[in-house]
Amino acid sequence: MKNRILTISREFGSGGRTIGRQTAARLDLPCYDQELIAQLARESGFTEDYVAEQSEYALRGGWLANALAGRSEQGVSSQDYLWIIQRQMILALAEKGPCVIVGRCADFILQDAADCLTAFVHAAPAWRAQRIAAVYGETAQAPEKRVLEKDKRRAAYYQFYTDRKWGQARYYDIALDSGVLGIDRCTELFASLF
Amino acid sequence: MKNRILTISREFGSGGRTIGRQTAARLDLPCYDQELIAQLARESGFTEDYVAEQSEYALRGGWLANALAGRSEQGVSSQDYLWIIQRQMILALAEKGPCVIVGRCADFILQDAADCLTAFVHAAPAWRAQRIAAVYGETAQAPEKRVLEKDKRRAAYYQFYTDRKWGQARYYDIALDSGVLGIDRCTELFASLF
Repeated sequence: MKNRILTISREFGSGGRTIGRQTAARLDLPCYDQELIAQLARESGFTEDYVAEQSEYALRGGWLANALAGRSEQGVSSQDYLWIIQRQMILALAEKGPCVIVGRCADFILQDAADCLTAFVHAAPAWRAQRIAAVYGETAQAPEKRVLEKDKRRAAYYQFYTDRKWGQARYYDIALDSGVLGIDRCTELFASLF
Repeated sequence: MKNRILTISREFGSGGRTIGRQTAARLDLPCYDQELIAQLARESGFTEDYVAEQSEYALRGGWLANALAGRSEQGVSSQDYLWIIQRQMILALAEKGPCVIVGRCADFILQDAADCLTAFVHAAPAWRAQRIAAVYGETAQAPEKRVLEKDKRRAAYYQFYTDRKWGQARYYDIALDSGVLGIDRCTELFASLF
């Protein structure tokens, strides 16, 4: 029998990871997000920073340029290699038992391999910009710009590996605006549906 | 003070209208959907069939062709005229008090005029095809084809008048898959958030 998994895709700064952790705690389930990066690093031999950068966010001169540049002649790119390991890891986690997985295209990877409740968390860019400045601190780059840039990278990465457009309601059982509803209310809703 | 309104946008056959009615009954609020078409017909002088056809579904040789064909030289098209009346009607309804409004771009029309909870209901095409055959009966056209065609028309209409892409999660506070969650569960969720 297939295990029940909550997958949470989320816009950067929307609080999707916090919601995932809170929901997992409420349901007494393991939650995988940063752990996945650590495990990917161990299994691939790359550093965690490299994995975080390449496997989700990199765009300019990164995986996309690499991926689009005659990949068939170059064999498997490091980004594709990471994708393959990530896919195997997520499939293995889903076999172990019910859990919450944040990000990493788990909704797509598990579509035929687990009984998934697929969720998407988004919020207005201004709300997310304010939140990331509060949660992660200020950087040289303005928070509005960081949000915009991460959105672009995440959308490009998701679309490249899944052939789906990022942020379409139809790919998710439930999609919530955390800026409007609040992080705790989103947690409650996900937990009530699981 | 702005009234609280639940707007439900929905894919054809997703049960969004039923969910709207059930939610309104649960909250003891008026629900506007078919009534809007009747009122639009009265106020515009067109028949209800014409309104239903022109103001949401028509595409081939209908409002879109008309709208795109040198509208500035032709004055206001009948489709634009309907849109103007629809907009005024929905703004007036929102002034009257809390309510549920299904369809008719109410989410867009009321974005600055009411305290809206904006919802979107969708479901897999196969689920919707099965449901419309059961609810509306069989027609000469296969249900899968009816779903596909209505989807196209609704998306084109929404995009034309709102400049937004249909079905993007970010435009809604909550988006649900009624085929996965079930119509009653969707009703519960909307009512719990209102």
